[in-house]
Amino acid sequence: MQKGIIQLKRTPAVIASSSVVGSHEHEGPLGECFDLHDEDNTFGMKTWEKAESEMQRLALNCALSKCTLNANDLDAIFAGDLLNQCVSSSYGLLDFDVPYFGLYGACSTAAEGLILASMLYGGSVYDKCAVISSSHNCSAERQFRFPVEYGGQRAPTAQWTVTGAGAFILAEDTTGTHPVIADVYPGRAIDNGITDINNMGAAMAPAAVDTLTRYFTESGRSPDSFSMIVSGDLGSEGAAIVTDFMNANEKFKNKFGSNYVDCGLLIYNKDAQDKHSGGSGCGCSAAILASHILKLMRDRKIDDVIFMGTGAMMSPMSLQQGNSIPGIAHLVHLVTPEKLNREGN
Amino acid sequence: MQKGIIQLKRTPAVIASSSVVGSHEHEGPLGECFDLHDEDNTFGMKTWEKAESEMQRLALNCALSKCTLNANDLDAIFAGDLLNQCVSSSYGLLDFDVPYFGLYGACSTAAEGLILASMLYGGSVYDKCAVISSSHNCSAERQFRFPVEYGGQRAPTAQWTVTGAGAFILAEDTTGTHPVIADVYPGRAIDNGITDINNMGAAMAPAAVDTLTRYFTESGRSPDSFSMIVSGDLGSEGAAIVTDFMNANEKFKNKFGSNYVDCGLLIYNKDAQDKHSGGSGCGCSAAILASHILKLMRDRKIDDVIFMGTGAMMSPMSLQQGNSIPGIAHLVHLVTPEKLNREGN
Repeated sequence: MQKGIIQLKRTPAVIASSSVVGSHEHEGPLGECFDLHDEDNTFGMKTWEKAESEMQRLALNCALSKCTLNANDLDAIFAGDLLNQCVSSSYGLLDFDVPYFGLYGACSTAAEGLILASMLYGGSVYDKCAVISSSHNCSAERQFRFPVEYGGQRAPTAQWTVTGAGAFILAEDTTGTHPVIADVYPGRAIDNGITDINNMGAAMAPAAVDTLTRYFTESGRSPDSFSMIVSGDLGSEGAAIVTDFMNANEKFKNKFGSNYVDCGLLIYNKDAQDKHSGGSGCGCSAAILASHILKLMRDRKIDDVIFMGTGAMMSPMSLQQGNSIPGIAHLVHLVTPEKLNREGN
Repeated sequence: MQKGIIQLKRTPAVIASSSVVGSHEHEGPLGECFDLHDEDNTFGMKTWEKAESEMQRLALNCALSKCTLNANDLDAIFAGDLLNQCVSSSYGLLDFDVPYFGLYGACSTAAEGLILASMLYGGSVYDKCAVISSSHNCSAERQFRFPVEYGGQRAPTAQWTVTGAGAFILAEDTTGTHPVIADVYPGRAIDNGITDINNMGAAMAPAAVDTLTRYFTESGRSPDSFSMIVSGDLGSEGAAIVTDFMNANEKFKNKFGSNYVDCGLLIYNKDAQDKHSGGSGCGCSAAILASHILKLMRDRKIDDVIFMGTGAMMSPMSLQQGNSIPGIAHLVHLVTPEKLNREGN
């Protein structure tokens, strides 16, 4: 039997997190939650790719300053993004003289990094780690679809790549106040044959259903026993598929839905901002977790949260060559320290 | 003080490894060491990218069969490659229903994966992991430079991307015969201002010098105390720079060189095969470690080896935008079980 849920022998706290976003995200319903934003989305840089790198740099600096740590205090950085060869991360984090692990988990990268850092903390290998992830609408459009200057029309099922970055510092919490990562569940790559590049939600949904189903089954917990279940960026298409499939399972019928949210649906105003199926990109779930979700936990409005990053592991070339789109869903289970102490781990 | 050398509380053995290469690599001086090769480099696939994915699939299957494990026995797979969005790995490993961590460490990916898997084994989080990495000359040329059909002339300092894949199974060795990973040293991204896309060796050399210097200093060991120091794919340019810099350091003067080899210089015949500065690519160090180096250790011809993967963390676009090339060097220290028992860890 494979290990599914990884119970952490030592549970790291998210002692600080920070979020950096663009103008559309700042204008959205959660605009006030984000730490930094830039009105023209350039962050003072001359190219969109450099702007994205700058967002990563700003996010990590901001997170470090919140917990009054220096980069030198970090044991390692786990980072990744959507750009070819993950250059937003490698260039954006060059200032930090810290062991660097480059990750590629598509839009699940924040969760992938949180899982790796948590497991290495859990195994007492590392004591302080940073996890960073980003996306930028204009660099992603140029790379995956068309340069924004082209003004191409978008399909109704398409999502809008979020301009955003999120950074997290995982370490021991001496104050006993910060949210804690109790256990993690790394996902498997799953390909159910979706080939529509304009419907990433549908491509990622099977992996999300797989991870959630296995997690609920192995943990013996019901979906409605969590205060919140957060998926990364399935958008309206993917979130609807996940809700349908979970409720089609006799075990979870009528137990999945009321506490379920998707970061892609939280970040923009559905009526006032024309974003079709919602937000997407590495920065979507990273920025929302780093701001809104962790704030709700710090304010003790929620105490038991599933955060599941979802990624579509394709490239424009793999689709041109007729491949379908594999999805992956990495799950992180966060609790308040009170919840952890009450129930143990 | 940051953690530099990670001493593993539990030391994983490389209980199996396998290598899959193309025709040029099979014709090279180590040709007989590789497990599988394909005369026309397509591996029965219709595109170079699918051929590369197939090499990863074959490499992992071959490694699993050598240690008579099933994919279901694995706790996790760590994999990556050079292609945009790491699609060789995500598609090539879809058959394996195992938790998947996508990595991007450029040509250092095999070492990055070995480090992460070793640390998670060391922390008793995982018991059995697979690490896989690959590159394919034709998919890399098409993506980073020109399609091979174009017949572009190559600069003298250019390296030849290896068509190859290497897979490693890390687990407990009940036989006490397999090479063991004693400690690891994750690298930092370092950018010394090299902007020549045709001289990756020079771009990666500063990171290699940084990692080696720190490692020798922290471990208190002299370079000539190891039976072999293996770098990933610095080629003749990069290897010469590293040798010069190490010998320019008063502490290591005349102690670095005689036991130093570079996988990029081992894989092709310098005279008979026109590969300019040598081999490169994720598959270069992965295939050579999986075959030649680990065979030397299994045959007890060497017992104390530094394996250092080197990567250039750029993209064609980052260079077009005027950035220089950051390098990274991840180090893995391998010993025979006898050596480990004799000296402890």
